[in-house]
Amino acid sequence: MRTFIGCDAGFDASGVVIFGAPFDGTASYHPGTRFAANAMRQESYSLEFYSPHLDRDLGDYAICDAGDLELPMGDPAPGLAMIEDFTAKALAADKTPLMIGGEHLVTLGAVRAAAAKFPGLRLVHFDAHTDLRDEFTGTRLSHATVLRRCWDLVGDDRIWQFGIRSGAREEFRWAATHTHLRQDDFGGLEAAVRGFGDAPVYFTVDLDVMDPAFFPGTGTPESGGVTYHALERALRVVVGGCNVVACDLVELSPPCDPSGASTSVALKLWRELVLMLQKPRLAPDWV
Amino acid sequence: MRTFIGCDAGFDASGVVIFGAPFDGTASYHPGTRFAANAMRQESYSLEFYSPHLDRDLGDYAICDAGDLELPMGDPAPGLAMIEDFTAKALAADKTPLMIGGEHLVTLGAVRAAAAKFPGLRLVHFDAHTDLRDEFTGTRLSHATVLRRCWDLVGDDRIWQFGIRSGAREEFRWAATHTHLRQDDFGGLEAAVRGFGDAPVYFTVDLDVMDPAFFPGTGTPESGGVTYHALERALRVVVGGCNVVACDLVELSPPCDPSGASTSVALKLWRELVLMLQKPRLAPDWV
Amino acid sequence: MRTFIGCDAGFDASGVVIFGAPFDGTASYHPGTRFAANAMRQESYSLEFYSPHLDRDLGDYAICDAGDLELPMGDPAPGLAMIEDFTAKALAADKTPLMIGGEHLVTLGAVRAAAAKFPGLRLVHFDAHTDLRDEFTGTRLSHATVLRRCWDLVGDDRIWQFGIRSGAREEFRWAATHTHLRQDDFGGLEAAVRGFGDAPVYFTVDLDVMDPAFFPGTGTPESGGVTYHALERALRVVVGGCNVVACDLVELSPPCDPSGASTSVALKLWRELVLMLQKPRLAPDWV
Amino acid sequence: MRTFIGCDAGFDASGVVIFGAPFDGTASYHPGTRFAANAMRQESYSLEFYSPHLDRDLGDYAICDAGDLELPMGDPAPGLAMIEDFTAKALAADKTPLMIGGEHLVTLGAVRAAAAKFPGLRLVHFDAHTDLRDEFTGTRLSHATVLRRCWDLVGDDRIWQFGIRSGAREEFRWAATHTHLRQDDFGGLEAAVRGFGDAPVYFTVDLDVMDPAFFPGTGTPESGGVTYHALERALRVVVGGCNVVACDLVELSPPCDPSGASTSVALKLWRELVLMLQKPRLAPDWV
Amino acid sequence: MRTFIGCDAGFDASGVVIFGAPFDGTASYHPGTRFAANAMRQESYSLEFYSPHLDRDLGDYAICDAGDLELPMGDPAPGLAMIEDFTAKALAADKTPLMIGGEHLVTLGAVRAAAAKFPGLRLVHFDAHTDLRDEFTGTRLSHATVLRRCWDLVGDDRIWQFGIRSGAREEFRWAATHTHLRQDDFGGLEAAVRGFGDAPVYFTVDLDVMDPAFFPGTGTPESGGVTYHALERALRVVVGGCNVVACDLVELSPPCDPSGASTSVALKLWRELVLMLQKPRLAPDWV
Amino acid sequence: MRTFIGCDAGFDASGVVIFGAPFDGTASYHPGTRFAANAMRQESYSLEFYSPHLDRDLGDYAICDAGDLELPMGDPAPGLAMIEDFTAKALAADKTPLMIGGEHLVTLGAVRAAAAKFPGLRLVHFDAHTDLRDEFTGTRLSHATVLRRCWDLVGDDRIWQFGIRSGAREEFRWAATHTHLRQDDFGGLEAAVRGFGDAPVYFTVDLDVMDPAFFPGTGTPESGGVTYHALERALRVVVGGCNVVACDLVELSPPCDPSGASTSVALKLWRELVLMLQKPRLAPDWV
Repeated sequence: MRTFIGCDAGFDASGVVIFGAPFDGTASYHPGTRFAANAMRQESYSLEFYSPHLDRDLGDYAICDAGDLELPMGDPAPGLAMIEDFTAKALAADKTPLMIGGEHLVTLGAVRAAAAKFPGLRLVHFDAHTDLRDEFTGTRLSHATVLRRCWDLVGDDRIWQFGIRSGAREEFRWAATHTHLRQDDFGGLEAAVRGFGDAPVYFTVDLDVMDPAFFPGTGTPESGGVTYHALERALRVVVGGCNVVACDLVELSPPCDPSGASTSVALKLWRELVLMLQKPRLAPDWV
Repeated sequence: MRTFIGCDAGFDASGVVIFGAPFDGTASYHPGTRFAANAMRQESYSLEFYSPHLDRDLGDYAICDAGDLELPMGDPAPGLAMIEDFTAKALAADKTPLMIGGEHLVTLGAVRAAAAKFPGLRLVHFDAHTDLRDEFTGTRLSHATVLRRCWDLVGDDRIWQFGIRSGAREEFRWAATHTHLRQDDFGGLEAAVRGFGDAPVYFTVDLDVMDPAFFPGTGTPESGGVTYHALERALRVVVGGCNVVACDLVELSPPCDPSGASTSVALKLWRELVLMLQKPRLAPDWV
Repeated sequence: MRTFIGCDAGFDASGVVIFGAPFDGTASYHPGTRFAANAMRQESYSLEFYSPHLDRDLGDYAICDAGDLELPMGDPAPGLAMIEDFTAKALAADKTPLMIGGEHLVTLGAVRAAAAKFPGLRLVHFDAHTDLRDEFTGTRLSHATVLRRCWDLVGDDRIWQFGIRSGAREEFRWAATHTHLRQDDFGGLEAAVRGFGDAPVYFTVDLDVMDPAFFPGTGTPESGGVTYHALERALRVVVGGCNVVACDLVELSPPCDPSGASTSVALKLWRELVLMLQKPRLAPDWV
Repeated sequence: MRTFIGCDAGFDASGVVIFGAPFDGTASYHPGTRFAANAMRQESYSLEFYSPHLDRDLGDYAICDAGDLELPMGDPAPGLAMIEDFTAKALAADKTPLMIGGEHLVTLGAVRAAAAKFPGLRLVHFDAHTDLRDEFTGTRLSHATVLRRCWDLVGDDRIWQFGIRSGAREEFRWAATHTHLRQDDFGGLEAAVRGFGDAPVYFTVDLDVMDPAFFPGTGTPESGGVTYHALERALRVVVGGCNVVACDLVELSPPCDPSGASTSVALKLWRELVLMLQKPRLAPDWV
Repeated sequence: MRTFIGCDAGFDASGVVIFGAPFDGTASYHPGTRFAANAMRQESYSLEFYSPHLDRDLGDYAICDAGDLELPMGDPAPGLAMIEDFTAKALAADKTPLMIGGEHLVTLGAVRAAAAKFPGLRLVHFDAHTDLRDEFTGTRLSHATVLRRCWDLVGDDRIWQFGIRSGAREEFRWAATHTHLRQDDFGGLEAAVRGFGDAPVYFTVDLDVMDPAFFPGTGTPESGGVTYHALERALRVVVGGCNVVACDLVELSPPCDPSGASTSVALKLWRELVLMLQKPRLAPDWV
Repeated sequence: MRTFIGCDAGFDASGVVIFGAPFDGTASYHPGTRFAANAMRQESYSLEFYSPHLDRDLGDYAICDAGDLELPMGDPAPGLAMIEDFTAKALAADKTPLMIGGEHLVTLGAVRAAAAKFPGLRLVHFDAHTDLRDEFTGTRLSHATVLRRCWDLVGDDRIWQFGIRSGAREEFRWAATHTHLRQDDFGGLEAAVRGFGDAPVYFTVDLDVMDPAFFPGTGTPESGGVTYHALERALRVVVGGCNVVACDLVELSPPCDPSGASTSVALKLWRELVLMLQKPRLAPDWV
């Protein structure tokens, strides 16, 4: 298995464990996120190890890329169970799992494992879309329902959503009393993070939170999003400011990225995230 | 709903009923066949009504394009039920349904309806792949198992396969005692068809039976296939020579067809097939 | 005919009438805008009905998508007459026509109808290009002359141009005494709109007013343009602040949009515009 | 102006004069042939000078590439006049003009010049399509009417069509009494050519006469066509066997050729044709 | 390192050793073959293990994929030395090396090693191009000179070339007295192979020997080539009929293969070749 | 040879001499910059002559496009010598050479010539990447080492780098004592330029200094870059404020630009740069 560049440490040696969840079976429009993790691995060989913003270097850490899970297409239930199992195994070994999607539904598998281990789990959710439907095209397991299914697990006032700019009217109405939803940008992020204290946080980043100008390579691009700069900084706010126990990057779709530029954007964010997650974590006042 | 060109008759008026089955949820590699029927509809407006080979013209017939079924992605079971229902409804009204896939699994829904109405149903199967696995990536409902599931319904000696050149060793071994499998080409097709007499036949055409030279626009192209000429002629042999009660064209994948040429190939075969299926059917000695 | 999502009301029931003008016959470089309206219709099925910015929902209104006019390629004159006729018919029925181009020349047909009905018509023109040549490659009917031809109809001091950053020196010189031309951005837009009072306004939006970062999918992209945010806000300024009697969105070119992201940008602007145009119009101080 | 490789001789020195006719203004579906001549010029720098089949070499001849005519888009009439003028000028100087389209309508301009100079002109027409409509989408000047317009000039029994497999029923009926139409292949070509004696022949080659397997890069690909081998041989039959006074290669569409393979096919045929047309012409029994 | 499917045996256990030579530094036109081996590895996971034509199965053999050599771009000399070293190491261990290019120049590195170990080495060369220039764009190490450089090592009457249809006149003239060159097809292949007896043979397959219809995904496609069927059969003739000590497949260029079909063609030939090379070799009368 | 639009003056008449350096032989990942200059020339025919920002017009100046140098692929040394020779010839004739890359290594050839003529030469370097490695994949001549090789020629404190956001840790460390490196943006540019006085300056612009949102069409896109606006303004700062004796634009890669938008961005910057470089130069306080 060819790993992400610089990530050939074994499972036991690594504090952060990367794995791919190549599932896009409920994608209602343009499938293709199943190819994301492998496309990123291949392109990662043109990435520098060093982050000038963090002054950290992949070469200084032992990092494990556990490869892609072999998820069946079709019915998502068995694949979600496999994701839950792997995440649980990593958490049991005190690793920080970093999952590369796949469509956003894969987050549910990882959140199940994190919620089982960490009572009081909070979710920080960056996305263009609410993902709060209770049902979509007749199914309750969908990229469009994933945050609602997470809410089933963690309940009211545990989900913080940022960058949201698309959804059904009912979703926005529902969010008003069940989640903390910030429209369009990251306003209030720092205050929210400060308020978490040591509470365990699952951090899910749907890359389409970026404007299509900065990230066109996704199946349902949504105008009016944040810049790359804003997202990179927001990652530092979250990882530097609270206790991230698991996280994911989802919704890169290589077939929607003919120039390859979005894959390179995803990779740079991946590197920054991997480096931020290394111990010692960034100081809270780092940003 | 924009129909295939020349196919705006109502359901009741039409002898052949066309519908799309835009499902590709079990595609193990490159999804995209969900877009096929709509891509064909759109491109059909550059197609001539007239077939010089058949000397028939779409304008002389009342033909109904019933549009695409709204199949959910993910678990294939509910979608297969919808396909079965629609096919049964068309058969009950003495129509000849012509389904446009979608991945090959959609055939199962239509065969269920045909087998229910027509005891002794035979299948004529054009394909590059055996599709005879009993299970694939942990599931029994897959594009790779579809003919095996059809066999569950019709039993031994009822399936004739042509053009086959790819599969697991076990599939070829299994076929030797359960189906009539012809490797690589259409050898024996005319004799087989002659032997059917008036028996009801379901005719399923996986377009990847053609060599990738003639049809690259499919998710799992397989070299060594038949030419367009050979396939067009074989369609005439089947429709002219036996009692086709329902049929399908599957596995065009528009994302694999950047030049658009494969969509045009599929469309021309679609027109020929639609014209052949009109009453009166071609004479047995037509070819 | 498959309509834009949520736009299946009849002509009589709808206050806003959408239609496509698929003509790109004078495109001097990369043709392809003829495919825009249908590409938008197809992709519209992944669009939400609800606009969080406007708190309006397509589902609350009766909206008619009248489909594409069947414009011949080649000589533009007959097509322009067809556009004029359709626009005149919609205006006569007190509808607000919203035309989807096509190249920018199609605007001329609609402006002819609007100018005939509304003496004193003003034009608000968002574009990267002046479009003020008197002749281009030997013809007076061209995407590069369209605003000049509109000026023939409405005269001096009736055309307000914003975002302009490309044209021949002579065009900029000519504009200085005949139109109100704002370079690069929307400076002065609010004051201009306030000044219109109740005067009738034709609003034409060439999507290439956006920077190619935000909208690469057009035949003649021009760097240095506005952001999506700025354009969305400017739409609100115009529709909320003056009496728009007809409007258009032109120059999306699907062949220049391999990732599909620009089609999604155009669609979101389309939804915002359709919702803004519903009665009651936005209040003047809405922005 | 960058020329086709090896074609930098002056107009006066050259026996064969090559020029581009970059017009695709009546293309009813996928425009793009306007880019063909320049794409071929650019790619020609990877072409060998030498033809092993002909044992001739571009380096042995003085050949003039006169570049592309500057044809306006939109109304085709002025462009056709420019093509007629240039062709007439070349014929007046006893050159053999070889025009690179562009859509097939450009042939009309060249045939007008040839018919004016050569009474009794015959046409040899290789194509998938009849191109014999009298009118198409309301116009008499179209890629779909071009051979009918040529017939207006030369009359009955002067047009030989080969490879034809698509058209309206009326076109095939009309051809039965006005042209010599051979369906699908080149059957009868040698006999026809032998029958011409010294009569002047205009030779027009629509590259879509080839099957899409061999030539997908065209706007209206039509299955069931001839192979490259068959076409190359047929070119030798025509040029070696009769008095070709002018000719063209039309309908390569680079936007439909993402792999570049069709451009290379067109180029190789171009080289063979250019070499065949050099004096002394091939012997009649050369093939 | 992710291997070709079914090729995860160790170097020592395997009789056939596969490795990639991702160099395309002298490509004079469209570079991209450097990506071939990895693209093939990735796509190989949709390939069946079983060959119905050979009735052999990858799962029955221990096969080593040694991955890609890390060849520097730019000056080809150091990379050729690395290829020579690896090939020599495999030959010294009595393995059969199978190299995946890269441009054709990589063959020189492997032939150096084979010629050093096997005096009297013969070359069987399938290609569209002669590759016999002594110098190209000022350099003696180029894809266009590689067979000439091989001739430097093995001398007259040791190189058999098939399928050749492109080259400079001088190359064809030179070949007449130095190599056995068969134009266009595989005529004489069986007789040649029979004549080799037990002599050691290096077998180099430039995939562009196929017609672009069957293999468009290469940097310099050349019309008039062989079919897939013909090539597959010719591989059996060579491997079944003589003593192949090393071999290669070169010139797949993934950037020229937007549909992915050519990569699948290359993979199927790769599987057939790998299975043929297993001991016991095919019988001489196998074909 | 087809020139950049409006650049058909002879060498002697022109103050600015444009030439292409189509070399990408050391590109470690996605090659393709070799096609940049020709793609720009072809697309330049859709560019206006007039710059509204500069109020200058290409039509007012005599400008020479000398075409592309014929650089061999493979070993970069001979190509660099050709670039050096051409640049030296232009400088000797008191021209300002403007080179269009090609990969960044081509800058070394031009800097050699400039440093030979102008003792005390300074470099202004806009780029995403440090390009300061001493060696890369075993070679000292690479796109990744080019600024280090320039430093060999000009020494400490002569190189000003802006926009840098990627490189190895060692490169950033090394830069701290040898060059003036500004991370991410153009901070300090005006002060630096003011400090140059009349010193001769070589100005090299790697277009990937822009964020991929504004310029995706390059082989190694790097997020977090500057906007088009910022870059256009910075060009004015440099050319208006100091004595630019030679310059280049490098790293546009047409194969990474499927929409064509990046080519149009490069072209607009090219026009602005060409116009700025005309005498009289912009005033220092122009910006």
